[in-house]
Amino acid sequence: MSQATDAKVLKERRRTDYPFFLSYRTRWIDNDQYSHINNSVYYHLFDSVVNAYLIQHAHLSPATSPQIGLVVSSYSHFFSPLSFPAVLDLGLRVTTLGSSSVSYEVAVFEEGADIPSVVGGYTHVFVDRHTRKSASITPNTRSGLEKLLSPSSKL
Amino acid sequence: MSQATDAKVLKERRRTDYPFFLSYRTRWIDNDQYSHINNSVYYHLFDSVVNAYLIQHAHLSPATSPQIGLVVSSYSHFFSPLSFPAVLDLGLRVTTLGSSSVSYEVAVFEEGADIPSVVGGYTHVFVDRHTRKSASITPNTRSGLEKLLSPSSKL
Amino acid sequence: MSQATDAKVLKERRRTDYPFFLSYRTRWIDNDQYSHINNSVYYHLFDSVVNAYLIQHAHLSPATSPQIGLVVSSYSHFFSPLSFPAVLDLGLRVTTLGSSSVSYEVAVFEEGADIPSVVGGYTHVFVDRHTRKSASITPNTRSGLEKLLSPSSKL
Amino acid sequence: MSQATDAKVLKERRRTDYPFFLSYRTRWIDNDQYSHINNSVYYHLFDSVVNAYLIQHAHLSPATSPQIGLVVSSYSHFFSPLSFPAVLDLGLRVTTLGSSSVSYEVAVFEEGADIPSVVGGYTHVFVDRHTRKSASITPNTRSGLEKLLSPSSKL
Repeated sequence: MSQATDAKVLKERRRTDYPFFLSYRTRWIDNDQYSHINNSVYYHLFDSVVNAYLIQHAHLSPATSPQIGLVVSSYSHFFSPLSFPAVLDLGLRVTTLGSSSVSYEVAVFEEGADIPSVVGGYTHVFVDRHTRKSASITPNTRSGLEKLLSPSSKL
Repeated sequence: MSQATDAKVLKERRRTDYPFFLSYRTRWIDNDQYSHINNSVYYHLFDSVVNAYLIQHAHLSPATSPQIGLVVSSYSHFFSPLSFPAVLDLGLRVTTLGSSSVSYEVAVFEEGADIPSVVGGYTHVFVDRHTRKSASITPNTRSGLEKLLSPSSKL
Repeated sequence: MSQATDAKVLKERRRTDYPFFLSYRTRWIDNDQYSHINNSVYYHLFDSVVNAYLIQHAHLSPATSPQIGLVVSSYSHFFSPLSFPAVLDLGLRVTTLGSSSVSYEVAVFEEGADIPSVVGGYTHVFVDRHTRKSASITPNTRSGLEKLLSPSSKL
Repeated sequence: MSQATDAKVLKERRRTDYPFFLSYRTRWIDNDQYSHINNSVYYHLFDSVVNAYLIQHAHLSPATSPQIGLVVSSYSHFFSPLSFPAVLDLGLRVTTLGSSSVSYEVAVFEEGADIPSVVGGYTHVFVDRHTRKSASITPNTRSGLEKLLSPSSKL
């Protein structure tokens, strides 16, 4: 799913489109002075659900793994505002899995809602920790990421 | 309990010292480059558990209440490091409840631990939303805050 | 310039493509545990340069203006890593100015560099502060935004 | 100067009390929904001016130095509110320099003001990067920190 995916398509996403979920409690500082979660905060949440998955389900150890994932591009569409102290459910899936890169899509649902408030994502390029040159995703990490491939991209 | 409370005393706090708890999932950006939750992040969490309590249990509406709480001083002691993706349990209590001000103490426990990793707190002075002059805490909010008074301060 | 603008095109941007600049000192927490400015942080900076311009050069008052700008979509491309304590120069331009919406492009240059490390942007829809329905951009704000139209979009 | 220093004393600080200054442009997200810089944000700034000094004037390299500084306690007093897009001048001094620990005091001045809006600080304990056991501050770093000792503590 590319960055150019139409907002209208992304707005139709539902919880069943995502194989992995984590819930995040919002923080007081997340609201900006218009009293809504600031747009930038969602990127912190994208980064959190992706890295939590990588660490807990795909054998990534940020401090010691031979490879790390660097974000090369990201995007987000904001459909409806949310506010602290909401608890947010983040759905995660992989849309493209290449030899050294992976693209994630993340949807943000308010507790109890099936229509997403925000949908976005980013692309990780895996690089060697020391040389920072691109590297093939290790089999262990790839195996974890494959479990997040969405039904449509599997075809 | 004043800001000058000895670190040794605060290190002895246990979960049973706190009448209210919320759990916060940490975020990737919370870790600084030493791979631990940065000291500043705990203040974001203090602010979050206090304001969540005020909104959900003490009749504060940040957008419309006649009064708002301004932080006049804060402090924290850091006993042991924590790291993303830990889930943190925040215990909250009120240590001093004056006519227009309230002091909170917050302890941060890793999931499953009874010894706090961090203990800190801050003092809110309630002010009129428009004039920003100090104002007596409303009965509804006071009633909510009284439920957080610790056993020792009740005496 | 749409969100779908090719990364290769954006990588060719130079300082002369941007009519307005502000410099931001990075913060310790901006570095994530891979010791580089985290991708999410750039969106905080985009929001900062845009809103600073709106307040100081386009008659927006976040607390009192009849209209406020809500972000409906954003994107970013990350070409090379930067690290605290770098000072970053942010170049701002407007790529599309509609009746009630405006799209900004922001480029991030390290001090002394003419090749951008990051280029991204977002779209603001202006809405009535109270009803949150879309509203025509006021003449004063439009006049300020017009000064940021890039040479190519002026044609 | 201990954490227990009276707020009244700290409120009397002036620019001449601080040997080192850096200016920080505030960010849109720094304002919370009460339209003022959130209390937690000042701790991000304290961390930034301290680490910038350590890196640029006291031979600390966060990625490679044998020692790193861990924050064991911090505090702040908030005297008057500030708001985005203010530019803030941060004054830094060292109040206590021990064999393996150092306490900093930081004052925040609005551009052009000589009365601080915020004064706080924290204590760093230097530890071995790998064992995380406390270690004597290296001569190079100590030499840099000595330049920040305030007149009173020099006596």
